[in-house]
Amino acid sequence: MTRQLKAEIISVGTELLLGQISNTNAAWMSEKLADSGIPVYYHSVVGDNLARLTSVFTLAHSRSDIVFVTGGLGPTEDDLTREAFQNMTGLEIKEDQKTIKKMEEYFAKTNRLMTPNNRKQANVFTGSKVFQNSTGIAPGIVVEYDNTIYLFMPGVPREMKSLMREHMLPFLMNKFALSNVIFSKVLRFIGIGESQLEHELQDVISNQTNPTIAPLASDGEVALRISANAPVKEQASRLIDETEAKITARVGQYLYGYDSETIENKVFNLLKDNQLTIASAESLTGGAFASSIVDMEGSSAIFKGAAVVYQADAKTDVLHISEELIRQHGTVSNECAEAMARQVKVLYKSNIGISFTGVAGPGKHEDNDAGTVYISINDHLQRVHQYKMHFSGDRDIIRRRSVKKAFELLYYLLINLK
Amino acid sequence: MTRQLKAEIISVGTELLLGQISNTNAAWMSEKLADSGIPVYYHSVVGDNLARLTSVFTLAHSRSDIVFVTGGLGPTEDDLTREAFQNMTGLEIKEDQKTIKKMEEYFAKTNRLMTPNNRKQANVFTGSKVFQNSTGIAPGIVVEYDNTIYLFMPGVPREMKSLMREHMLPFLMNKFALSNVIFSKVLRFIGIGESQLEHELQDVISNQTNPTIAPLASDGEVALRISANAPVKEQASRLIDETEAKITARVGQYLYGYDSETIENKVFNLLKDNQLTIASAESLTGGAFASSIVDMEGSSAIFKGAAVVYQADAKTDVLHISEELIRQHGTVSNECAEAMARQVKVLYKSNIGISFTGVAGPGKHEDNDAGTVYISINDHLQRVHQYKMHFSGDRDIIRRRSVKKAFELLYYLLINLK
Repeated sequence: MTRQLKAEIISVGTELLLGQISNTNAAWMSEKLADSGIPVYYHSVVGDNLARLTSVFTLAHSRSDIVFVTGGLGPTEDDLTREAFQNMTGLEIKEDQKTIKKMEEYFAKTNRLMTPNNRKQANVFTGSKVFQNSTGIAPGIVVEYDNTIYLFMPGVPREMKSLMREHMLPFLMNKFALSNVIFSKVLRFIGIGESQLEHELQDVISNQTNPTIAPLASDGEVALRISANAPVKEQASRLIDETEAKITARVGQYLYGYDSETIENKVFNLLKDNQLTIASAESLTGGAFASSIVDMEGSSAIFKGAAVVYQADAKTDVLHISEELIRQHGTVSNECAEAMARQVKVLYKSNIGISFTGVAGPGKHEDNDAGTVYISINDHLQRVHQYKMHFSGDRDIIRRRSVKKAFELLYYLLINLK
Repeated sequence: MTRQLKAEIISVGTELLLGQISNTNAAWMSEKLADSGIPVYYHSVVGDNLARLTSVFTLAHSRSDIVFVTGGLGPTEDDLTREAFQNMTGLEIKEDQKTIKKMEEYFAKTNRLMTPNNRKQANVFTGSKVFQNSTGIAPGIVVEYDNTIYLFMPGVPREMKSLMREHMLPFLMNKFALSNVIFSKVLRFIGIGESQLEHELQDVISNQTNPTIAPLASDGEVALRISANAPVKEQASRLIDETEAKITARVGQYLYGYDSETIENKVFNLLKDNQLTIASAESLTGGAFASSIVDMEGSSAIFKGAAVVYQADAKTDVLHISEELIRQHGTVSNECAEAMARQVKVLYKSNIGISFTGVAGPGKHEDNDAGTVYISINDHLQRVHQYKMHFSGDRDIIRRRSVKKAFELLYYLLINLK
C-alpha cells in the first residue's frame, strides 16, 4: 500500500518567494510524513497569484495522490488558495457554521471587532471534512477530488503543526491503514570523507534497491541513511540489519553512532562513563571547542573550563608558555601545542587537556599557511598525543573543522580505553 | 527588461524531501534576487531521481527565463542533476580541465586519495561557462539552452553563497543590463523587541505602500527592511530616505546600523577605533562570546582571550575568585560577576574585562531560575557596569541571548565614549 502513495507539499506565499522566510513548514511536514511511511516526492512554493496557483494545483493533480497545501487561506484579498482550487475543480464553496460560531466567540472574548473579511476563513468546499484548529481560527480542510486527497492548512507553523498532529496525520493513517513503524536508520561515520566512503561501498550502494542507501554529508562527517520498505516493522528491521552488516564489514572502523547521535555526545558520554574531566587551551578556535561542550546539558560533570589564549602574550601570561619556547618554535608548532595542553590541565585541574593552535587565516602566520592546525592532547595517564592537520576553506570552516577533528581524536582515544 | 524576466529555483536532494534539512538555500537566493530586481516565481524541491528530476526541468523550461539549480552535482551515483538536464537538452558532457587541476591540487595538499568518482564533479556541459568555487571543489556551471539560462551550483550553502555572490549575480546583472541599484535598505535595531517596535510604528507601517516596510526578526535583535520601487536609483533612494526619517523620529535611539552590519562588527570597530582590548570571563556562555569575537578577521587587534570558568573551582583556581565570596553570594551573583570581570582583565592584561555568570538550565542553580544571567563590565577607566537579566527559552537560546546582550551593552558603552 505504502509503495503506491505519492505525496507532495504546496506552500503558498509571496514572502517565501521574496526570501523573507524559509520553508520550514515543508521540512517539518516531510519529516513527520517520512516517519509515517508516506513518501513525499515534491515540494513547491508559489506566490499569491491566481493563475500560477491554479497551474501548480493542476500539476500536483497530475502526479500525486496526496497534496498538502499551506498558506493563502487567510482573510485578505491576497489569499487566493481556495479560489485557485475552485478554478481547477469547479467545487462549490460554502460557509462552515461551526467555524463561524467559533470565530464569533473568539472575537467576543477578545473584545475585538469581527470584520466581514474574517468570515472568509470559514469558507470550505462542499463535501469536505473540516477539522477545528486548537491553536487558531482557520480550520483544516480535507477534500477528495478525482482520486486525489487535498489537505489545506494555514501557513502559520504553530497552527499547521497542531492540525497535522491532531487531525491530518491520524486521518491519513486511518484512511490508508498505515502502521507507524520506522523504516530507516542512519549510520554515522567520522574520519572518512564522503567520496572515500562511497568508493569503498560503491557496489553495495548501487546493487541495493531495498533498502536503499543514501549518503548525507555534513562538515567533517558523513552519514548513510538506510531506508527499508516493508509491510511490517520486523521485516524492515531485518532488511536494515542485513545491509548494515554489509556496510560495517567494509568501513566499520569509522562508524561511531546511529540516528541522532553526534560525535560530541559520544565524547561527552565516554568522558562521563570514565569519570574523566577535560579542559581546553584554545588559540585559533577561540573558545569554539568549549562552547560545543557547554552546548550539552550536564557538561559540568566533565568540563572544567578553557583558556582562550588568542595572542602570544596571553599564552605566556595565562598558560605560562615560556617566551623562549615561542621564540624558538613559534606559537604555531607542535611544541607550543604540547605545552598548552599540559599547562591548561594543570591550571584547570582536569584529567585531560586539549589544545588548539594554528592559522585560521586569511593569510599566513609565522610562515605557516592558513589551515595549518596543531592539536595536542595530554591524557589522564600523562600521555601526549600530537596531531598536525591542513584544512582548506575560509576562517570559519577551518575553525569548525578543527573542533570537529578534536572530537574525532578524543573519541578514538576514549573508545580505546576499554 | 527586469519586469519580463521570470526566475525559478530548483533544489535537488532527497534529504529535503525527508525533512532532514530546510530549504534555506532557496530563501537566501530569493532574497538576493529580490534585491537585484529579478523576480522569483517558483521554488521546487525534487529528490535524486532521474525521471522526476527530468520532469521538473521540463516544467521549469516551459515557464521560466532563468533557472537556478542547486544540489545533485556531487561525486556519488545518487547525484543525477547533470544526467537529468542532459536528458532534456541532449547537451554533451565533458570534463573541465581547470576544475580537474584544482581538484588534484586540493587532494595532494590535504594528503587524501582522489578516488575516481571525484572526477565527476568536473563534468560540465559543452558550451557552458564554468565558474570556480572559492570555498570548495564543485564549480558553478552556467548554460543557455533554448533561450532559458540555467545556473547550476552545489547544494552546500556556503559554496552556493560564494558562487552566487562572486559569479552568478554579477553574470546576470551584466547579461541583462540590470543596474545594480539598491531598492532596499535594512535598518538594524537593538534593545527593542519586535512587537514594541511594530507598536511604535504601526501607522507608519500600515499607511506605507511605496516603500514598503517589513520587519525581520532574529534572536535578540530586530530589523526593518524598507523596499522602494522606482525606475532609477535616485528616486528609490529618496523614497527610502523619507521613510527612514519617519522611522528614526520614533525609534532612532535603538538604531545601530544598516544592511549587513552586525552589532558584533560595530563593537569590534569601536574597540579598534578607541585602541582598546577586551578579555572575557565566561561561565554559562562557555566561550561563546570569545568565539563570536574570533569569528571576525583581525580580532587579534582587540581580543586578548577568555577564561572559560564553568565550575566554581575553576573560578577560584583560574580567576582567584575567593571561596569566601562564592560561599557568601554564590557564583550566580552580582558580586561574582564583578570579580570575574575585574580578574580576567588583570590576568589577560586587557583594557576591558567582561564576565558572564548565570543559569542556562534546564533547572535551577543555587536557587536561581534558568535564564537568570549576570553580566559585568570593568572598563578601561576601572568603572564597573553591572547588569542582571532574565531570559526565557532553552539552554541554547539563553546562552545566545546573553552573548547578544553583551554586545549591546558594549555598544552603548563604547558609542558614548566619543
